[in-house]
Amino acid sequence: MRVLFHTILSPFSRKVRIALGEKGLDFDLMAEKVWERRDEFLALNPAGQVPVLVETTGFVVSDSSVICEYLDEVYPARLLIGSTPAGRAEARRLAAWFDQKFHAEVTQNLVWERVTKRLMGLGEPDSAHIRAGLLNINYHLDYITYLVEERRWLAGDDFSLADIAAAAQLSCLDYVGDVPWEDHPDAKDWYARVKSRPSFRPLLADHITGLRPPVHYADLDF
Amino acid sequence: MRVLFHTILSPFSRKVRIALGEKGLDFDLMAEKVWERRDEFLALNPAGQVPVLVETTGFVVSDSSVICEYLDEVYPARLLIGSTPAGRAEARRLAAWFDQKFHAEVTQNLVWERVTKRLMGLGEPDSAHIRAGLLNINYHLDYITYLVEERRWLAGDDFSLADIAAAAQLSCLDYVGDVPWEDHPDAKDWYARVKSRPSFRPLLADHITGLRPPVHYADLDF
Repeated sequence: MRVLFHTILSPFSRKVRIALGEKGLDFDLMAEKVWERRDEFLALNPAGQVPVLVETTGFVVSDSSVICEYLDEVYPARLLIGSTPAGRAEARRLAAWFDQKFHAEVTQNLVWERVTKRLMGLGEPDSAHIRAGLLNINYHLDYITYLVEERRWLAGDDFSLADIAAAAQLSCLDYVGDVPWEDHPDAKDWYARVKSRPSFRPLLADHITGLRPPVHYADLDF
Repeated sequence: MRVLFHTILSPFSRKVRIALGEKGLDFDLMAEKVWERRDEFLALNPAGQVPVLVETTGFVVSDSSVICEYLDEVYPARLLIGSTPAGRAEARRLAAWFDQKFHAEVTQNLVWERVTKRLMGLGEPDSAHIRAGLLNINYHLDYITYLVEERRWLAGDDFSLADIAAAAQLSCLDYVGDVPWEDHPDAKDWYARVKSRPSFRPLLADHITGLRPPVHYADLDF
């Protein structure tokens, strides 16, 4: 069986889980405590990060963007990046926006501070980071609102890797209760549409011991 | 004419300059002071970062990885990412390694601290960052050595985006004199091979007012 090494609140792991689900590809999830830097895991990915996908053939692919490009090349029946150079550039631009900019400005300030630091025994959250994350998320939800005013999905007419990358980040923040959905109704409507997709369902069943998500996390009509 | 918005010591801009050169595509360079956040530039790329490529048709692509994927799709005569899914995954994995890991652990600690901060008027370099960068670069040069012991180029038999991404980062560090080449002769030999390519030549003529590169920077037999 295909195996995906992941951590529950890694947005990049979630991105690949959704992509595999959209493509209808079965896989087993293996939780990896990346901070333990296991030798066997470092042999799979010397960068020491999740996600890492191990195909049934034993072929190993790491880095969420590399995995998603690989999946679109090898399982093209349902394309996630798009079919024209311009459409693909737009889906990739927005996926990179959420993977890099949103992650640095929001997810690291909130999920890292509130959860990962604790799991790794690195102490209390830094309140300056929390404040920055809670401020920055509004700009990104405004950007989503701007995009879905003109488009059905973030990169255009079709659901794409852009939606997957954005929803993967937001789902981690939603787990810790940090998304001001009520202030951004159009972004909320877009997220509800992503959330109701079968590929997203397994993420809503995620559960971290000692850290219960808010009630609306798994609610499709939140 | 095709236009590339760049800054001289942006490794991501350099990556695209080399890629365009490898493909034999002409372009005009436009220096962009990204920290001034010009409205016209933000309209091209709301992320406010270089590189941004504007095609002769007016089509705009931003983010160095997105631009390189686009170039390989639209100008495939000379492929830079590879031709098989496994080869492409390896070239992309290593490009991501240098774009993300090397950049965060080395380039930001050294080039940002020594140059960008000064250009932006943000004060003196932080010595803890400089020390971290000067230590970390050795691990990455060791990794390059490990790769070229087994392979002709970083990702395999062919020169690829992996070499371009790595050399783009290293060329910025070389400009500020921070690469301990003598301690890593195999990595130095690989870099000399990249440096001698015609696509790399324009980078060696780069010059920042008030910041002269070391003599070996433009020397092919350094």
